[in-house]
Amino acid sequence: MFFASDNSGPVHPQVMDALTEANKGFTMAYGADTLMDEVRARLREVFEAPDAAIYLVATGTAANSLALATMCQPYETVFCSPTAHIHEDECNAPEFYSGGAKLTLVPGSDKMTPDALRGAISGEETRGVHGPQRGPVSITQVTERGSVYSLDELNALTATAREFNLKVHLDGARFANAMVALGCTPAEMSWKSGVDVLSFGGTKNGLMGAEAVIFFDPEKAWEFELRRKRGAHLFSKHRYLSAQMAGYLRNDLWIETARQANANCSRLADGLREAGAQFMYEPDANMIFAALPRRTHRVLHDAGAVYHLWDGSLDGDDPDEMIGARFVCDWSITEQMIDGFVDLAKS
Amino acid sequence: MFFASDNSGPVHPQVMDALTEANKGFTMAYGADTLMDEVRARLREVFEAPDAAIYLVATGTAANSLALATMCQPYETVFCSPTAHIHEDECNAPEFYSGGAKLTLVPGSDKMTPDALRGAISGEETRGVHGPQRGPVSITQVTERGSVYSLDELNALTATAREFNLKVHLDGARFANAMVALGCTPAEMSWKSGVDVLSFGGTKNGLMGAEAVIFFDPEKAWEFELRRKRGAHLFSKHRYLSAQMAGYLRNDLWIETARQANANCSRLADGLREAGAQFMYEPDANMIFAALPRRTHRVLHDAGAVYHLWDGSLDGDDPDEMIGARFVCDWSITEQMIDGFVDLAKS
Amino acid sequence: MFFASDNSGPVHPQVMDALTEANKGFTMAYGADTLMDEVRARLREVFEAPDAAIYLVATGTAANSLALATMCQPYETVFCSPTAHIHEDECNAPEFYSGGAKLTLVPGSDKMTPDALRGAISGEETRGVHGPQRGPVSITQVTERGSVYSLDELNALTATAREFNLKVHLDGARFANAMVALGCTPAEMSWKSGVDVLSFGGTKNGLMGAEAVIFFDPEKAWEFELRRKRGAHLFSKHRYLSAQMAGYLRNDLWIETARQANANCSRLADGLREAGAQFMYEPDANMIFAALPRRTHRVLHDAGAVYHLWDGSLDGDDPDEMIGARFVCDWSITEQMIDGFVDLAKS
Amino acid sequence: MFFASDNSGPVHPQVMDALTEANKGFTMAYGADTLMDEVRARLREVFEAPDAAIYLVATGTAANSLALATMCQPYETVFCSPTAHIHEDECNAPEFYSGGAKLTLVPGSDKMTPDALRGAISGEETRGVHGPQRGPVSITQVTERGSVYSLDELNALTATAREFNLKVHLDGARFANAMVALGCTPAEMSWKSGVDVLSFGGTKNGLMGAEAVIFFDPEKAWEFELRRKRGAHLFSKHRYLSAQMAGYLRNDLWIETARQANANCSRLADGLREAGAQFMYEPDANMIFAALPRRTHRVLHDAGAVYHLWDGSLDGDDPDEMIGARFVCDWSITEQMIDGFVDLAKS
Repeated sequence: MFFASDNSGPVHPQVMDALTEANKGFTMAYGADTLMDEVRARLREVFEAPDAAIYLVATGTAANSLALATMCQPYETVFCSPTAHIHEDECNAPEFYSGGAKLTLVPGSDKMTPDALRGAISGEETRGVHGPQRGPVSITQVTERGSVYSLDELNALTATAREFNLKVHLDGARFANAMVALGCTPAEMSWKSGVDVLSFGGTKNGLMGAEAVIFFDPEKAWEFELRRKRGAHLFSKHRYLSAQMAGYLRNDLWIETARQANANCSRLADGLREAGAQFMYEPDANMIFAALPRRTHRVLHDAGAVYHLWDGSLDGDDPDEMIGARFVCDWSITEQMIDGFVDLAKS
Repeated sequence: MFFASDNSGPVHPQVMDALTEANKGFTMAYGADTLMDEVRARLREVFEAPDAAIYLVATGTAANSLALATMCQPYETVFCSPTAHIHEDECNAPEFYSGGAKLTLVPGSDKMTPDALRGAISGEETRGVHGPQRGPVSITQVTERGSVYSLDELNALTATAREFNLKVHLDGARFANAMVALGCTPAEMSWKSGVDVLSFGGTKNGLMGAEAVIFFDPEKAWEFELRRKRGAHLFSKHRYLSAQMAGYLRNDLWIETARQANANCSRLADGLREAGAQFMYEPDANMIFAALPRRTHRVLHDAGAVYHLWDGSLDGDDPDEMIGARFVCDWSITEQMIDGFVDLAKS
Repeated sequence: MFFASDNSGPVHPQVMDALTEANKGFTMAYGADTLMDEVRARLREVFEAPDAAIYLVATGTAANSLALATMCQPYETVFCSPTAHIHEDECNAPEFYSGGAKLTLVPGSDKMTPDALRGAISGEETRGVHGPQRGPVSITQVTERGSVYSLDELNALTATAREFNLKVHLDGARFANAMVALGCTPAEMSWKSGVDVLSFGGTKNGLMGAEAVIFFDPEKAWEFELRRKRGAHLFSKHRYLSAQMAGYLRNDLWIETARQANANCSRLADGLREAGAQFMYEPDANMIFAALPRRTHRVLHDAGAVYHLWDGSLDGDDPDEMIGARFVCDWSITEQMIDGFVDLAKS
Repeated sequence: MFFASDNSGPVHPQVMDALTEANKGFTMAYGADTLMDEVRARLREVFEAPDAAIYLVATGTAANSLALATMCQPYETVFCSPTAHIHEDECNAPEFYSGGAKLTLVPGSDKMTPDALRGAISGEETRGVHGPQRGPVSITQVTERGSVYSLDELNALTATAREFNLKVHLDGARFANAMVALGCTPAEMSWKSGVDVLSFGGTKNGLMGAEAVIFFDPEKAWEFELRRKRGAHLFSKHRYLSAQMAGYLRNDLWIETARQANANCSRLADGLREAGAQFMYEPDANMIFAALPRRTHRVLHDAGAVYHLWDGSLDGDDPDEMIGARFVCDWSITEQMIDGFVDLAKS
């Protein structure tokens, strides 16, 4: 019963097979492998973006930081949610990679609204040379609270960025989960919705450690390559990043694993609802934020369940106090695991 | 016939097995996996360093840059060879990670000498606050030209650093190859020779992409962890880095692959010598820098051999002109491949 | 009628005299001038801090950025008010100088409260290595809205920082104005209240361009010197910084000019109050934030008065709409200027 | 007898007068003062460059670092002499301001030659993404060894940069001294010779602390302004920078002080020659590098003369050993001072 994170599960067998298959003979290093040609071609096809510049890195933080550093000058500020991964969970990596740019937090507790974004953008660049200049907008889809922007919502945000001639980055660490939730195409949830640069996640959805960065306009491709190298994220044995991503894309595995993860989450959400959980956010994809009584957490904990408490702790006098928690499902979670967990939660 | 680099060959089967074995069920992310416990314990044992702080990253540039950034203030300068990887092949990554430290090049064309190092160190910090302050010394073992420092040579360099109270970093991307060449222990070629922080390579010696950074004094361990995260080099699915390194250490595989690589190189060197090659450096480990006539390169090239010309090109009027080249062997090169290559070179 | 800023007025004659007096013959450069000895001795005496390390720079942003960079690691975050100069008015200079540290904004619209500060600090470092680590607290006294923390308020904030073992920086660009407002000693408003490092302003209070950075604990003095040089803020003809600061300190000129500025502000505030101004903040020192009807602004503007509108503009249909503005007084504002201005405001 | 540096002498009276004159009433801050209009217009006229973007900062290191940071990406390298101020005397400021760019040292001991520069440029960018990319060339005129490039030499260097499409920065901390030595126009020694961005020194030639940065192509003007602010080098009371520079330009004072400094140097060189000094470099402008016997240095030292020994020290057994030293003249050195010094050197 492991709902701690979608980075806790195993690599999908199809991806392991692709790695094994790639592990033969000699290849050119540093991205000149032929598997990368396959990846590039397939992602361009999947995204209906024949000119896109596409690169692989091994961590989501690298994807985000390198993308933003390429989009942003050090005297600018990036607009993002206070709950964005780039703000809360990357230990100042965007500030580091950008050479000291700022992050301006758009007020809100989960999804950004166009009004809040417009307000935040309007609030900057009011002091000429004295304050940071307006830089890119970074949107997280799925959000860090498990919500999914509809295409309309996404378009409204990117349109707001365009009002100020700002570029848009999408942190798609869980891109597939969101896309499955919306039932749209990759292009619709990216460049057709006004996204300029995409961190296309794989690690949380069945890969070992591989993310793509997709520039729909390839103008800054070479700069990205230099920044990736300088950031120590250019892999010599690059074929193993390529193999992961190739395996991910073959037969739409990436969509299938996301569908499974979302379905797992839905089943878990239904069960928790029946168990009396109070939902903090509507679980749109594969993450649940919900509160259960302390005594229920204790039962789950004692049975070996692993997940993160979001506020409060197991210790405390009141067994009935509702304590928030985060539950994340990846593709590898089984129905049996979910049902056993729910049974405990109901007990 | 692929002698382009030791990052061109496949992952060793024992390492693939370790990855497959690790690919079961759920684990804690970000280095809290139990395999990392095995790695840590084993490396401490191998290096006779029970207090060492040990971390994994995926690229050699990350290992070097993060190690140096932890050892060096931005107003300091790192002493290294003009041929050091950190100077020539990391696109300013050390400057980036250190926040703008300088690299002072110790005059020479391959191995640093104590006198040259002493001269370089003495030349800095002569201007008080105006020039950069003396920072760590970084030594590359095996050097980028295929040479191996003897333990005496290594000790003489680190003693020179100590004269000035400077710390020593060892770029051991090919640590195993050097150690096998010297026939010494890991401890002898590191902390017993005065090395403070080691980049312990794995990728060039049979891994997919995993390097250890070893701090023999753990004082700055936590700082390193923060810098690794901030540099986007903390892997969520860290168990796959651990599994590689665990597989590498089991049954001394890492020594065996290095021994094989060096033996391959030795066989190739003998053959090239017979073929009339002129050696630019003595091949101490698994790399050869040697010149062959242009016509020989053409024959090899036409037969599909892959390696890097070091100076000059295949084009040119004089078929007898000697053109330098680099030939690198990893563990996976076969005798058949070498002998076929040598036969061509002799033809 | 110039109330735009306290950086708009002239240099005090006593300071010009000190510059002229210093302009004789040869001196050692880069801070080795004997005038700096006088400055150092006098500031140590004034602050009852015989061990303090004391440096001069030419801009307030340099003082703040260099102080914070010396106090803060790049993987940490600085706690400050959303209205702090370091956040709003330095174009990412603290992020630049610190090598990419973050600024965590303590909720509030002017003075920080201990509770809000405690909440902000508690909110960081909850994610181990993933989020930024807690760095120094930076307090602005006088605040950017013209408020002055009482000594009790100041102590409560620094005590909050101490709860978490954090250091405290005080941005004292208007230190003298605050001190005069409180009627306390320099030591009371700095180290006796828990301040570790002080940006001691001069430019806004009669100097040409000189600020002191005072480390009450000199441990990081040499690091500061290196960071100052590397930041291009070490003046070769340093004697002219020293002369300004020496002239500032002689006969307590700095207190006298601040007293005059505050008195000017008080006179102006009284007049504006009579003229029906609505005060947005209580003017504790030498700055007023107050709203007047649009028509009054128009009258003032047409008469040549210079000051910053804070919200809204002269253009607009409603002549009675209240429009906020900032009025700043330095020592050089005359009673005549104030009274003429008030007369217009009343008209 | 003070020959330590041209930053040791006083500010020229005409400049002090300009400061005093500027010290009246109120002005707009941050460069919006009308004196800056005068400076801008006059420098454009002097340099025959009506479109030039012109900014003032207070230190030479700031001028150089900000200029280079605006011209250079962090993954590039700046080409300069091993004796360049930006390399030896700025404590990594260019690396800091550029966000971690490298400096590639063009072999040589004083003036760069086109061949050495071409070789250095050719040596970079030979490794694709792995090494730093070619960035701007920075030339120092007067060099740090007191030499002056002829216009032909300057043109040959900038032509070499153009071969590779690289921009050229000129560190003109002693621009006026070089121009006077060559007897050419400002335009001839800058944009007409292929210089793109100029650090136009003033501090070493009679100012208190003011340097201009001149972009002959104003394309990056706004970026420079942001970098200057972010670097904490935008002065609030900017009029006092403007006043210095205005005073410097009026009646060609800057040319007159340089002429006087060079004449002083020439007189000193003649005297030292007669005293048996061995010249290490030909003193083309206002600096002399020459060796005198240790006993002579002792005589001079005991008489209170101040200058920097370049190698060796006063201590030593051999009174006849020749010890190199640097002697610098500014405009304020008197003939009496020189003659007295020479008399001692001859004694």
